[in-house]
Amino acid sequence: MSHRVNVAILGATGAVGTELLELLESRQFPVANLKLLASPRSAGTTLPFRGENLPVEAVSEDSFQGVDIVLASAGASTSKAWAKTIVESGAVIIDNSSAFRMDSQVPLIVPEINPEAAAQHQGIIANPNCTTILMGMAIFPLHQVQPIKRIVVSTYQSASGAGARAMEELKAQAKAILENQTPSTQAFPYPLAFNLFPHNSPLNEEGYCEEEMKMIRETRKIFNAPQLSITATCVRVPVLRAHSEAVNLEFSRPFAPQQAREILASAPGVKLVEEWQANYFPMPIDATGKDEVFVGRIRQDLSHPCGLELWLCGDQIRKGAALNAVQIAELLIEKNLLKSSTSAVSV
Amino acid sequence: MSHRVNVAILGATGAVGTELLELLESRQFPVANLKLLASPRSAGTTLPFRGENLPVEAVSEDSFQGVDIVLASAGASTSKAWAKTIVESGAVIIDNSSAFRMDSQVPLIVPEINPEAAAQHQGIIANPNCTTILMGMAIFPLHQVQPIKRIVVSTYQSASGAGARAMEELKAQAKAILENQTPSTQAFPYPLAFNLFPHNSPLNEEGYCEEEMKMIRETRKIFNAPQLSITATCVRVPVLRAHSEAVNLEFSRPFAPQQAREILASAPGVKLVEEWQANYFPMPIDATGKDEVFVGRIRQDLSHPCGLELWLCGDQIRKGAALNAVQIAELLIEKNLLKSSTSAVSV
Repeated sequence: MSHRVNVAILGATGAVGTELLELLESRQFPVANLKLLASPRSAGTTLPFRGENLPVEAVSEDSFQGVDIVLASAGASTSKAWAKTIVESGAVIIDNSSAFRMDSQVPLIVPEINPEAAAQHQGIIANPNCTTILMGMAIFPLHQVQPIKRIVVSTYQSASGAGARAMEELKAQAKAILENQTPSTQAFPYPLAFNLFPHNSPLNEEGYCEEEMKMIRETRKIFNAPQLSITATCVRVPVLRAHSEAVNLEFSRPFAPQQAREILASAPGVKLVEEWQANYFPMPIDATGKDEVFVGRIRQDLSHPCGLELWLCGDQIRKGAALNAVQIAELLIEKNLLKSSTSAVSV
Repeated sequence: MSHRVNVAILGATGAVGTELLELLESRQFPVANLKLLASPRSAGTTLPFRGENLPVEAVSEDSFQGVDIVLASAGASTSKAWAKTIVESGAVIIDNSSAFRMDSQVPLIVPEINPEAAAQHQGIIANPNCTTILMGMAIFPLHQVQPIKRIVVSTYQSASGAGARAMEELKAQAKAILENQTPSTQAFPYPLAFNLFPHNSPLNEEGYCEEEMKMIRETRKIFNAPQLSITATCVRVPVLRAHSEAVNLEFSRPFAPQQAREILASAPGVKLVEEWQANYFPMPIDATGKDEVFVGRIRQDLSHPCGLELWLCGDQIRKGAALNAVQIAELLIEKNLLKSSTSAVSV
């Protein structure tokens, strides 16, 4: 038995929005009707879905009537502005923004990690930060075997984290520099091509940027480990759309690299990429467009007897955003957790 | 009083070699005669120095007669092949390769850190690995105030670490990708443009690459701290010539960020770059061509009461290689540590 559901994508024209559309089609998500919504500025165009060109409509008070699931990826202010309308209309919003992630009433879900949290939803489910999802995928299977005590992570984040416009800006900057011209900056505060800089999200009083605090707080919430010690350094690098992370883990007892390797080799959504002879490990260009989080270079931390080092890459738009959101939607259907579940059409 | 000395650059045509030439001129190094040496393949060309075009000669048994200082930057095998000849000819070799760094008879020197070690030389002085020098510059001033217990470092290393050819390859790859062509790889095993990968130096049985082991072993030797716990993840990024590093330090007691900031603000060869309001911190494009190691984002590690996080960028060719070598040469003159010191001409 499967239910067909009515879906809306809010922010359909963005980098994550177009990926959502592609995933709904390629994963044969049981869409009855699909509504593409965007700001009035982006409305009016069409996007392809299952051989049809669907119109992108300007979002309005009436947009969510009859909709079961809203996949929202239009930024925190848009999500905050429309969440109440969406919930009152009877839909569940799976929100890719940071608007509700740390709200204690809102489940924050990576389906491979904490699917059980979905049952608590009250109309809103939050999709975690991309960097957080990717790290969680690689380390939660280890955490289940032996609880992690402390995480020291450094990120290598692609332009896509700042949207489609930022990816185009990176390419335009590279072209300008190669032609000895001055690169222009709009999406980012500084040139990213042939350069890198600490993540440009706002800093708190302790000197951590928002992106780093997301990794810290969201990982604790997803893992249900409020005391987990985490520090992060988030950095933007001139890569198009996959993030990488160097992760140092501390456990209470030694964690044999070989055991970690075996655990991750069979972990859902994880691909172990370690060709030691060829010095071949996860790389952004290989992870781009892939569903799995690529993990490798698993090794004993030489500085700590209970430490483990690993390296990962994952597609920031896919598992880091759109794929995880679609998986949450699939979970809601599978567990009959849509508010409209009782009335959904059995096909 | 200053002495004029005869200098030879071995590997004059490489990325570091040409920077050595520029530094000898711009720092008004007291050169009497300068000899440019390279492999027979690279010989025959000329390079500019103080308004003259000096010939690049093929290195031979006779090349080092009358030379006081050899600045060697032609790789470990070349240094190993010529060191004995150089030392026997009465010159001191300041070697930029890894050939002698961990030799207990050979001082490994960063002049701001352990200048006193130069007095022990027996004709060979080793210039440390670039990544090691840059990190050492930023953390030794803190280590002096309170000994560091443990270092967890992740690097963001530019193409220049693999030489001038690698920098050209990165640009050519970026151009190819922007034109929808397949990038070619020769200097690196994988495309670096719009990509990154774990450092491509050989791996040991524990899964650490040579670059990481250099950071671990060389830092201990330079700091004279054989028990210092260090782990490193070294990564190549598509940046032209400055390295960046995310450094996590653990002390025995808390180290106040403000105190660290004050120490580093007055540390020799270090430039504190922290504009918190503007979210402006060290960036490779700003550190390129500069002598100082740029340090910033100094903050309390949220995962450990005695932890401190910092971020640094430094020109890999300059302080990471050529500048440090020239500074060692200046130190030898200043401390009368040339083997020819007694016979050098007073001017």
